[in-house]
Amino acid sequence: MERENLSDIPEVGIGMLGYAFMGKAHSNGFIQMPYLFWPPPAFPKLLLLAGRDEKSVREAALRYGWEKYTTDWHDIMEDDRIRIFDNGGPNITHRDSCIEAAKAGKDIICEKPLARNAEEAQEMLKAVKKAGVKHCCAFNCRLVPAVRLARNIIDEKRLGRIYHFRAQYFQEWIVDPAFPAVWRTSRELSGTGALGDFSHIVDLARYLCGEPGAVQGVLTRFIDERPMVGNPKRMVKVDVDDAFIATVEFENGAIGVLEGSRFCPGRKNYLFFELNAENGSIYYNHEHLNYLHVYYRDEDPKETQGFHTVDVTESFHPYGGTWWPQGHLVGWGSTFVHEAYHIVDASINSTPLEPHVATFEDGYRAAVVCDAILKSWEEGKRILVVYD
Amino acid sequence: MERENLSDIPEVGIGMLGYAFMGKAHSNGFIQMPYLFWPPPAFPKLLLLAGRDEKSVREAALRYGWEKYTTDWHDIMEDDRIRIFDNGGPNITHRDSCIEAAKAGKDIICEKPLARNAEEAQEMLKAVKKAGVKHCCAFNCRLVPAVRLARNIIDEKRLGRIYHFRAQYFQEWIVDPAFPAVWRTSRELSGTGALGDFSHIVDLARYLCGEPGAVQGVLTRFIDERPMVGNPKRMVKVDVDDAFIATVEFENGAIGVLEGSRFCPGRKNYLFFELNAENGSIYYNHEHLNYLHVYYRDEDPKETQGFHTVDVTESFHPYGGTWWPQGHLVGWGSTFVHEAYHIVDASINSTPLEPHVATFEDGYRAAVVCDAILKSWEEGKRILVVYD
Amino acid sequence: MERENLSDIPEVGIGMLGYAFMGKAHSNGFIQMPYLFWPPPAFPKLLLLAGRDEKSVREAALRYGWEKYTTDWHDIMEDDRIRIFDNGGPNITHRDSCIEAAKAGKDIICEKPLARNAEEAQEMLKAVKKAGVKHCCAFNCRLVPAVRLARNIIDEKRLGRIYHFRAQYFQEWIVDPAFPAVWRTSRELSGTGALGDFSHIVDLARYLCGEPGAVQGVLTRFIDERPMVGNPKRMVKVDVDDAFIATVEFENGAIGVLEGSRFCPGRKNYLFFELNAENGSIYYNHEHLNYLHVYYRDEDPKETQGFHTVDVTESFHPYGGTWWPQGHLVGWGSTFVHEAYHIVDASINSTPLEPHVATFEDGYRAAVVCDAILKSWEEGKRILVVYD
Amino acid sequence: MERENLSDIPEVGIGMLGYAFMGKAHSNGFIQMPYLFWPPPAFPKLLLLAGRDEKSVREAALRYGWEKYTTDWHDIMEDDRIRIFDNGGPNITHRDSCIEAAKAGKDIICEKPLARNAEEAQEMLKAVKKAGVKHCCAFNCRLVPAVRLARNIIDEKRLGRIYHFRAQYFQEWIVDPAFPAVWRTSRELSGTGALGDFSHIVDLARYLCGEPGAVQGVLTRFIDERPMVGNPKRMVKVDVDDAFIATVEFENGAIGVLEGSRFCPGRKNYLFFELNAENGSIYYNHEHLNYLHVYYRDEDPKETQGFHTVDVTESFHPYGGTWWPQGHLVGWGSTFVHEAYHIVDASINSTPLEPHVATFEDGYRAAVVCDAILKSWEEGKRILVVYD
Repeated sequence: MERENLSDIPEVGIGMLGYAFMGKAHSNGFIQMPYLFWPPPAFPKLLLLAGRDEKSVREAALRYGWEKYTTDWHDIMEDDRIRIFDNGGPNITHRDSCIEAAKAGKDIICEKPLARNAEEAQEMLKAVKKAGVKHCCAFNCRLVPAVRLARNIIDEKRLGRIYHFRAQYFQEWIVDPAFPAVWRTSRELSGTGALGDFSHIVDLARYLCGEPGAVQGVLTRFIDERPMVGNPKRMVKVDVDDAFIATVEFENGAIGVLEGSRFCPGRKNYLFFELNAENGSIYYNHEHLNYLHVYYRDEDPKETQGFHTVDVTESFHPYGGTWWPQGHLVGWGSTFVHEAYHIVDASINSTPLEPHVATFEDGYRAAVVCDAILKSWEEGKRILVVYD
Repeated sequence: MERENLSDIPEVGIGMLGYAFMGKAHSNGFIQMPYLFWPPPAFPKLLLLAGRDEKSVREAALRYGWEKYTTDWHDIMEDDRIRIFDNGGPNITHRDSCIEAAKAGKDIICEKPLARNAEEAQEMLKAVKKAGVKHCCAFNCRLVPAVRLARNIIDEKRLGRIYHFRAQYFQEWIVDPAFPAVWRTSRELSGTGALGDFSHIVDLARYLCGEPGAVQGVLTRFIDERPMVGNPKRMVKVDVDDAFIATVEFENGAIGVLEGSRFCPGRKNYLFFELNAENGSIYYNHEHLNYLHVYYRDEDPKETQGFHTVDVTESFHPYGGTWWPQGHLVGWGSTFVHEAYHIVDASINSTPLEPHVATFEDGYRAAVVCDAILKSWEEGKRILVVYD
Repeated sequence: MERENLSDIPEVGIGMLGYAFMGKAHSNGFIQMPYLFWPPPAFPKLLLLAGRDEKSVREAALRYGWEKYTTDWHDIMEDDRIRIFDNGGPNITHRDSCIEAAKAGKDIICEKPLARNAEEAQEMLKAVKKAGVKHCCAFNCRLVPAVRLARNIIDEKRLGRIYHFRAQYFQEWIVDPAFPAVWRTSRELSGTGALGDFSHIVDLARYLCGEPGAVQGVLTRFIDERPMVGNPKRMVKVDVDDAFIATVEFENGAIGVLEGSRFCPGRKNYLFFELNAENGSIYYNHEHLNYLHVYYRDEDPKETQGFHTVDVTESFHPYGGTWWPQGHLVGWGSTFVHEAYHIVDASINSTPLEPHVATFEDGYRAAVVCDAILKSWEEGKRILVVYD
Repeated sequence: MERENLSDIPEVGIGMLGYAFMGKAHSNGFIQMPYLFWPPPAFPKLLLLAGRDEKSVREAALRYGWEKYTTDWHDIMEDDRIRIFDNGGPNITHRDSCIEAAKAGKDIICEKPLARNAEEAQEMLKAVKKAGVKHCCAFNCRLVPAVRLARNIIDEKRLGRIYHFRAQYFQEWIVDPAFPAVWRTSRELSGTGALGDFSHIVDLARYLCGEPGAVQGVLTRFIDERPMVGNPKRMVKVDVDDAFIATVEFENGAIGVLEGSRFCPGRKNYLFFELNAENGSIYYNHEHLNYLHVYYRDEDPKETQGFHTVDVTESFHPYGGTWWPQGHLVGWGSTFVHEAYHIVDASINSTPLEPHVATFEDGYRAAVVCDAILKSWEEGKRILVVYD
């Protein structure tokens, strides 16, 4: 206990939009944060939960301990006790609510993709910059201890010039044609399909390798219509991509490839990346998220060179000591606890979020890259990535 | 939401002894339980935390949200609002506090090993039986979804007659001779060393394969004295085992081997088991705890027979839906959330804890097996396992 | 022994160009073939080995048991006892010698890539067709038992419509800038660099998924000059690619990506492919070549669905019984034994080589795809794949 | 080419008993050896193959290129051109033929287990010592490059004091009760069952860890009778063990466990060992035999400590350069090529076989350990290992 007096620890009011999968993960993040990051920068108070369906949002509020709920997210903006606005709702909700939150002076954490396209994302970025609020785009993969370790190794220049970065994100959840149309399969609600949803790997490319200079893209859709939820006899058009592939030429001379698909049977939530460089390589598999694999060309004795399988759970590792002793695995949910810590810490202590937490700037840039991939596919040619 | 009215959900008062590693894991279990197992059988109220060191127990109480703390665990017994006593303290504290808690009519969850030896464990078992309280021995490995799935497969008779069970538990935390003497290296405080600490694998042998009929044992100690905590120049005698091996002849005709060691560099928290039977095999590795590996001799088409790597995170798996969607890993801490659920559910709804939660009966039997292993080593011969 | 009389087994004369890595692998293939594929279609007689460096070719001839050697490969064409011409020399040697061999009426096996570009490959294809000789392009990966099994599963329609095919081929052998210029780093001698050398994955894409309809490509070179062999102070220009990436749109609607690099530290000879389809997935890793990983969406009981790790060494597997009993691994060299069997069998018994052995037609088509990838890179746009 | 003149390379005559699985593997070893270990110490001449069934031995002789065959192994002893006697026949054949071979002055390689029990093995050892011939017991696992590397690391004292050695050998080939009785299931023909057959792991324990001082054993048999070959209605008694477990106390203070079984579905030919020591650990899995896994406690930077997955196929590795370039896997059969090299080299050049090739001394010692395990089981007590 570094601080002499616990009563010094302030409280921080949270308002959240979205109560489903992401609402669960983010709520859990704020609940676990203060006793895992002890002493916490502040104790989060779960003040107001917003969602469209009253029955569902009421129950979610009870479940996760939110003080109140509302079916109108504007209520969050008007509550002065709320310092942090957390948006875990569908992509279509991101722009308007975040811009309003910025105007209301709230610090913001918004789920990825930041918006349905780069234009929306840019509006949001401008808004938070203008308002001077903290802003975080929830690319939570950065906050896996093994991924942070990967970045540390790269930052220490131990690997030298980077030659390759490749990443894959594969799921199987809509491979069954009977799976219904949901907001994630609608262009209006989502922007894109696999491309935006799996833009985690676009962000990781930027976080670990560097800025893309040009891309080529292939997108495809395997199933054009799906049953309506609640009325399976009526079919709804699917107008987003089911899968994408993009080649990337990075500004630093590395080349890479990003691939995402929701049509990979057996791949439940498979996110993989690999980076090859002058003096070594790194790879990571999100389905075994406590481990990082590292190869050194020069540092190891030749006869026992080989990828090190690093169990990234030691006290001297990133987020070391936050959880359990070495070898006791953390789960996927831990990333949101880390994220809650960073946004609260930044909000309360004015610490910078970058480089390890993605900001709206990162969210915007990922959107630009995604738009370029889409454009390359539409035009059948290589497209330069240009940020404003 | 199955229940019409949330106000029907009762509260259940918890008292806990121990505030360190296990105190953290158990506290977290009670905190996360109600919103993950929604609606919960009751809302746990963390009423009283006991520990010897006042400064530490006070801070832990603040950290995890305990209403009060005490340096005298007897206070827990006298508090009528406390329905469940959770003992996560050193082994030497188990017997007296649990017996007193039973007398006070409290339901009990006690860390493993249940006691320092079978005699103590038997006293505890008699006490809880006499008092008619619920009793749980925290062999949390049973509550990993993959381990529950293993048991389900065995229960369904899909594998047939069992031939082999083997299990290993390896750590490395005291391989450095400079690591200090702690309560886990003292016979008085712990009973045994690796043997009792890793009796998880004794319990898994009973849970998954059946009752041991006879054992042979080897125990050893590699380092005989260690620096005193806080005074590294003074050496303290280590009088427990650093490692053990036991062969097991099961009553059902299977043979097996159990091995545990704290001297395995690179093995952070490696618990592995494998079971071979007439119609198939199963294996499991705790360092990848979301997965189970299953081989069927008869059910699969011959040309693609092979161990199935099962990602045990689907909604139709044990504890499915409690956490995240498929492929989103849970961590080691989840087992204590499951355990909190079971003890609270049993306490409130009078549901049985067996067979999936270990009771004091299981704790006692594991202690009998451990004592037989120890006796075999001391006498250099095969020892029958006899429960009273 | 199916044949009554061993004296019925004929001999078949072999002539070979190339004595280094491929010469070793191919010679070994002919030596092991007759006793592994027992009874063999014929006993190979190693009659004449050709190579430019007399000292080296003489020693290689002695080493592998060749009857004679020559420094002029035209001698092979003039030797009527030679029925099969095996070309394991540098790419620049492929066209002229194979065309002459075809004219001389010899059956031919030629290393991959078939030629330096599609134009050369087409000339070769026309020559063998015109001559009516047997022709094989040594894409030996097809002949790994696990890869054959993959193809069988696909042929049986068990996986349904294919959605994705991806393949990677990574090595590290020239990541050190001090590694000298060799024929594989010269456009004149090789045609391309990683692209042609790793066209195994182009062939596997066609073999397992289907014909590519369009491609996009990125090629790069990380090191522009290398020391001359034998004179490290003099630098030689490298004018081929060190690495490439290609997206592929298959005619059947699947999309895919192929990536190859010689700059991946830690990846010794890593060839990986994965195929995702309606009813399941398959993946394979050449660094563990005895195994195939298969996932069935429909055939397995839900709760134990997972990738099967299939040890493809059973007697009922492809090439089963040729080698050792189940679980006794075969090595990389085995593929050339299989290849020797197929070319000899086809030559002697007029059995067809397709679909499991790649022919000059396959070699030509792979070259067309590679040329399209190259063109896409040069022109910055998507290129259609068109075979003549 | 080190030798100036190839005609300096002598020939060495080989006689072999056994033409089945081991006959195939050993014949292949002698065939491949001279061109892989180039220049070879001698060119093996396969002179005489012996076996009981004339039809089978005749065909095997034709298949593998033996000059002659016989149904009476004594013929081998009388042929002066034969310098090396290779016994790959059933265990019952080992003693008499090897003793006679020794008397005839032949160097000997004999399959494991060396004999049906320690008494027989000792007679054989005395005979070869008395005759002064070279003697090798075909514990071929020592000759896997990765296993040799493990030994090198231990020899270099990089791991320090050894704490643990454990090894497992699991197969599944007789788990089906309909599998017939064979010589390996007969005590008279085999001595023991799994125990002797899998004594590879007893040998590896001695090779890698040191001499056993005491053992405890459990043996069992799951199926007591099996159908007769060729007459499945008639049942034959099985009087050997199907599986065994042994604890080992090594003289150096390490403890260990050895386990073998033929009743492990899914385990085709699974041989695993792990060694834990003061400064690191090593593990190896025979089903991925090109790899060794090594962990260093002190040599690696802390944050990337982890088991190195070493691809033991580099030119600087044991047997490096004998086969293919890095990353190109060798198979199980390679070990017999290495063995052929060592026995021929020792025979021709009087080089010592130890410590990397097991001798009859090693075969005898393994038999003593197996006998002690058996005795421990029969007597229900710990047994000291005593070599004469």
